[in-house]
Amino acid sequence: MNYRILVYTLGWILNFQALFLLLPCLVALVYQEPSGWNFLFTALVVSIIGIILTCKKPQNNQFHAREGFVLVAVSWILISLISAIPLCISGEVPNYIDALFEMVSGYTTTGASILTAVEELPKCMNFWRCFSNWIGGMGVIVFIVTILPMTGSNANMYLMRAESPGPSFGKLVPKLKKTASLLYIMYIVLTLTQLVLLLFGGLDFFESLCISTATAGTGGFGIRNDGFSGYSSYVQIVVTVFMFLFGVNFKFYFLIVMKKLKDAFLIEEVRWYAILYAVATILIAIDIFHLFGSVGESLKHSAFQVATVMTTTGFATTDFNQWPIFSQMIMLILMFVGACAGSTGGGMKISRFIIYIKSAQKEIACLLHPNSVKKIKMDDKVVDHETLRSANVYLIIYVLLVSASVLLVSLNGFDLITTVTSVIATFNNIGPGLGVVGPMGNYSSLSVLSKLVLIFDMLAGRLEIFPIVMLFFRDTWKR
Amino acid sequence: MNYRILVYTLGWILNFQALFLLLPCLVALVYQEPSGWNFLFTALVVSIIGIILTCKKPQNNQFHAREGFVLVAVSWILISLISAIPLCISGEVPNYIDALFEMVSGYTTTGASILTAVEELPKCMNFWRCFSNWIGGMGVIVFIVTILPMTGSNANMYLMRAESPGPSFGKLVPKLKKTASLLYIMYIVLTLTQLVLLLFGGLDFFESLCISTATAGTGGFGIRNDGFSGYSSYVQIVVTVFMFLFGVNFKFYFLIVMKKLKDAFLIEEVRWYAILYAVATILIAIDIFHLFGSVGESLKHSAFQVATVMTTTGFATTDFNQWPIFSQMIMLILMFVGACAGSTGGGMKISRFIIYIKSAQKEIACLLHPNSVKKIKMDDKVVDHETLRSANVYLIIYVLLVSASVLLVSLNGFDLITTVTSVIATFNNIGPGLGVVGPMGNYSSLSVLSKLVLIFDMLAGRLEIFPIVMLFFRDTWKR
Repeated sequence: MNYRILVYTLGWILNFQALFLLLPCLVALVYQEPSGWNFLFTALVVSIIGIILTCKKPQNNQFHAREGFVLVAVSWILISLISAIPLCISGEVPNYIDALFEMVSGYTTTGASILTAVEELPKCMNFWRCFSNWIGGMGVIVFIVTILPMTGSNANMYLMRAESPGPSFGKLVPKLKKTASLLYIMYIVLTLTQLVLLLFGGLDFFESLCISTATAGTGGFGIRNDGFSGYSSYVQIVVTVFMFLFGVNFKFYFLIVMKKLKDAFLIEEVRWYAILYAVATILIAIDIFHLFGSVGESLKHSAFQVATVMTTTGFATTDFNQWPIFSQMIMLILMFVGACAGSTGGGMKISRFIIYIKSAQKEIACLLHPNSVKKIKMDDKVVDHETLRSANVYLIIYVLLVSASVLLVSLNGFDLITTVTSVIATFNNIGPGLGVVGPMGNYSSLSVLSKLVLIFDMLAGRLEIFPIVMLFFRDTWKR
Repeated sequence: MNYRILVYTLGWILNFQALFLLLPCLVALVYQEPSGWNFLFTALVVSIIGIILTCKKPQNNQFHAREGFVLVAVSWILISLISAIPLCISGEVPNYIDALFEMVSGYTTTGASILTAVEELPKCMNFWRCFSNWIGGMGVIVFIVTILPMTGSNANMYLMRAESPGPSFGKLVPKLKKTASLLYIMYIVLTLTQLVLLLFGGLDFFESLCISTATAGTGGFGIRNDGFSGYSSYVQIVVTVFMFLFGVNFKFYFLIVMKKLKDAFLIEEVRWYAILYAVATILIAIDIFHLFGSVGESLKHSAFQVATVMTTTGFATTDFNQWPIFSQMIMLILMFVGACAGSTGGGMKISRFIIYIKSAQKEIACLLHPNSVKKIKMDDKVVDHETLRSANVYLIIYVLLVSASVLLVSLNGFDLITTVTSVIATFNNIGPGLGVVGPMGNYSSLSVLSKLVLIFDMLAGRLEIFPIVMLFFRDTWKR
């Protein structure tokens, strides 16, 4: 482990974090909120530490996969730890663990909240929450990679590989920095489009901004106590469409912009994502028809809820705790599946499931014809052995970590459904589960141990397990 | 597919099935029960068909992996279909799907019952249920392999590989037939030992026989309405010990008999099985202490319940629906883990989990040191690539099938816990789940569709997925 470069880069991350902290100060200035001082104070302290750490460039530029994983994991933890400070010192969330839970939930785009009355928060705090969704959606490190002249030759690649979601990592263009910039440009354009459409719907600028950033990151923090049930149908439909769009692999948009329409629509993952979305929406609409009595209403609620669950956003227009069990089960399964790789959505990702299903088909073909040699292909390209093995191990560690988490959370003494779904909803970065942590409930009543476990789960889920798990191996920390 | 040899071997299986059907006739004779005629009638019809099918030996002896898988799957289905007939025509279980559910549950050693008052059944029927547990425990085909002069040269190997549980298949001695005979001898000796010990406990011969066979197969069919809560502590402890013993890899006993004590205790799987059993028992005993008030009572209940869940037997001394959530979660996790490979227990098997954990360790080591080459070892032997891949794919198909099953069963409209645990409890061949299908409940109120799905799950679980799944591929049936 190259500690010098680790500390140096963390210093730069602190500098950026200080800049980010000025944004809520701006909001506080506009709305004349004294809470803004908490952000300014934190920004000052953070920037001083950041400047000290970055004043001397390290001589040893060695940067390997190991450094990439650790840097990403530590950065995410550090950023969350810092972001929780203003919430805590302002007295709005007096318990630091609660504040940390809220901010980890924000950056990991989970959207699980410990707040019982979110409307009473100052506007600068609510902006800070939704902004963390937006930053977390595309990834903090990817953002910094686009700006910072990274020291190590292949540092950028290792960092992006460690942070970007999905079983394998593909560049859009040969240059990595260009890829990152392109991703961010598309991200900003989509966010702004949603913002404008929401303004058309009659929402004020602040609310439109918060909703757009929370949707873009598929984060799911809301700024109203009743979630999305109070918004107009127009707003609900706009949000539905954009949740779906942010769950699409960004490669799709890139190909569209490049006018390679045919290639774009041939991406297997995107096709399956759309098919799965449509099928689930229709099935649930049929199942809940008797609750709403009209095709339009049923479809609207179903489309919203399926989008929110598949993209792991976690908004809610209605309490799906009350829906028939068949609809609940569809949503529970979709929670695991998640959105596309290379999107801002969470879960295990559609492309992993495509790999899994193809692996299963291949294995059965091998049993039937022991001498045949078959390769697994995706988008007409052979999936390499490393990716396959890694996807398999991902499933294994996923199952083990979820089991261990459920066991620890069960010490809390809540009912089985709350216990299990709180872990599933946080590990897959969704937000609301069922029972006590359902769409109209929240995570405030959980014990400190449970909250710490779920904080770990949110981070492990967002960073796709390996970076976080690696922190616990002694080998990782060897010089 | 060599259809001739398939039909010929199925004929022999029918002949054996006819012989088995004479056993409950014997019980009926002893206890003067008229229901015995139903078994005799079925035996006659089955033997006639069997004799017709076996009168001409097929000339083409070709027997490959494909034939092995299909023969095992079809045999299990056929045997279950036949065994359900006497229950149905006697009028005791008038609905044929119910009777089929009961017998599949018996042969797959699940022990899930649709019967609401098992004590009212004639003795010959109860014997038939428990006997199906015993036959299913060691495997029907393995049994026939030991007796039948199989036609194909490597037919025996393919059949045993398809039927025996665990990620890989190992012979105890070089000769396969000898291995099968040894397994059955050990199985019989252990069963008889338990029988004698139960007789010492004051139970009558019939009850001791039923309990012993149901324990040996880790099946879990009981013959009392209140399960095991009414039996003496002595009986409960004997059953606990034997459930544990039947969950041990039989290789362990073989090595003990061979006086290779050191080798026996070095089997990784058996060691982990014992450790896991002890840890779970102690944790649950502490957690339920307040319910029973004495260390002895808590330990007794905990040891019984952990054994019944780990070995997937499914007996119950108490309604663990009422236990604290932490204990319930431990048991829920153990339901998936299951017992040792090469035992009569179900679940995913300890050895698979050892492989999974070692794969995860290896993957992380690879990420940390990309150039290192590491092999996964078990009992100091390298686990080959095929076994690893197959274990991974097993997990994948397992997750997919469980999800699909849960979705279908959810159409039944039961609560979430009943829906999910009914699938888990049948797929892992345990028996009782939680909620409506809890230890003091049963499966009678489920819809026909749900019962059919769970029948499929029981078979897929017992035969470890591949043989059953293969039936649905067109390639399997090509000549």
